[in-house]
Amino acid sequence: MGALHEGHLALIRRARRVAGKSGSVVVSIFVNPTQFGPKEDLSRYPRPFARDMALCQSAGVDLLFHPTASEIYAPDASVIVTESSLSKGLCGASRPGHFNGVCTVVAMLFQITRPDAAIFGEKDWQQLAIVRRMVRDLKIPVKILGHPTIREEDGLALSSRNLLLTPESHLLAPRIYQALLGVEMEVEGGEKSVSKLRRGLLKDLTAIPDAVLDYAEIVNGETLEPLKRLEKGIFARALVAVKLGSVRLIDNLAL
Amino acid sequence: MGALHEGHLALIRRARRVAGKSGSVVVSIFVNPTQFGPKEDLSRYPRPFARDMALCQSAGVDLLFHPTASEIYAPDASVIVTESSLSKGLCGASRPGHFNGVCTVVAMLFQITRPDAAIFGEKDWQQLAIVRRMVRDLKIPVKILGHPTIREEDGLALSSRNLLLTPESHLLAPRIYQALLGVEMEVEGGEKSVSKLRRGLLKDLTAIPDAVLDYAEIVNGETLEPLKRLEKGIFARALVAVKLGSVRLIDNLAL
Repeated sequence: MGALHEGHLALIRRARRVAGKSGSVVVSIFVNPTQFGPKEDLSRYPRPFARDMALCQSAGVDLLFHPTASEIYAPDASVIVTESSLSKGLCGASRPGHFNGVCTVVAMLFQITRPDAAIFGEKDWQQLAIVRRMVRDLKIPVKILGHPTIREEDGLALSSRNLLLTPESHLLAPRIYQALLGVEMEVEGGEKSVSKLRRGLLKDLTAIPDAVLDYAEIVNGETLEPLKRLEKGIFARALVAVKLGSVRLIDNLAL
Repeated sequence: MGALHEGHLALIRRARRVAGKSGSVVVSIFVNPTQFGPKEDLSRYPRPFARDMALCQSAGVDLLFHPTASEIYAPDASVIVTESSLSKGLCGASRPGHFNGVCTVVAMLFQITRPDAAIFGEKDWQQLAIVRRMVRDLKIPVKILGHPTIREEDGLALSSRNLLLTPESHLLAPRIYQALLGVEMEVEGGEKSVSKLRRGLLKDLTAIPDAVLDYAEIVNGETLEPLKRLEKGIFARALVAVKLGSVRLIDNLAL
């Protein structure tokens, strides 16, 4: 979606390594209207394209794909890709249609570019899980690689939406990651009860001044199904979404 | 879906010509469960695979893809391709979910085989229009080629379901095509009113003993939208579906 930051650049550098000298790195920049809800921030989503293009150039991108909405969507378009399981909860609960918009545009970008591999940030963990599911279910021949979240020094996960935070909110935002680290510490201390872990997480998040909690869940990282206890061999993950003023921020951490 | 007849073999021969000497012809045979409704004929759909394989071999097929349902669908599959416009009427009205099943499996077959071109019979006209729409909307890089319907000498459109007709129904079935030819004759005589043309078509179809009419429509062949008058530059098509006993037959004709 552009407004490139160090998180995106980490994905591009990873793609450059995966592609090697003989392969090509393609970046798509497209603020996809179908993944925004009617009350969401499509119009104010940042679009610093000249800067994005320069960043791509210096990061060794071979192809930058920057289509208009009308190049992607016919006026009478009637075919979409839908996901009906992983997309129900978490961000999907408050953003109906969002992940169908994501699936449809990602499927299209895969058809247009036919990549051997595609890199997605782990910051959008639910999106990553859904894209993996889509590629599996529709047999799209592309290898999906997740890349770890890049953070500011204070721990705030990099996001193009961080640009929209007020200075006050920006000072409070790192407490989201601190709350996740608090859960991690409890897990390291031996806590296995998900309800207890979640209670601590909720307490820390609701203590952030002016923060409005959307969700805080501890789930199976692959199926996104709720867990009762942490167990060996189950890949648990804490995922949170918080609104600071008008800006919705998400983050997640492996447990 | 297998149970190959001369109609399929015409598609294979066309594919052989399109592929040339250097290209490969791939045939998929898969009786796709997701495109059958709960009360439809999935279990009794004919599956003469050994015969199909021999026919493919002698027709010069390079690859025959014959997966099991569990190779195509994961038990927890949750991603599908849906079409919401062309699939609403005609066969879609009486077969809810059918065309989503078709779109999903065809999209998957395209991902698995990555063909340069794919041949579909015009007998399933609505399916052909929907597949064209899917390929357009999802940007799937495949050329869709429609191939004219192959008919028995008496005019009956070839279909694997013809094998399920009783001898009595088989004698009556050619009257479906005769009804379509009746419309064509009226058009050649200068009739432009779709309601008048349709009235004649309905009269001929309902006169077939024991036939139960599902639909008989004259539509824009590309958008499948109803027409009021035939006009130059509009590509009209008559489409019909009739049940003879327990066997549902479809046919269509360009006007």
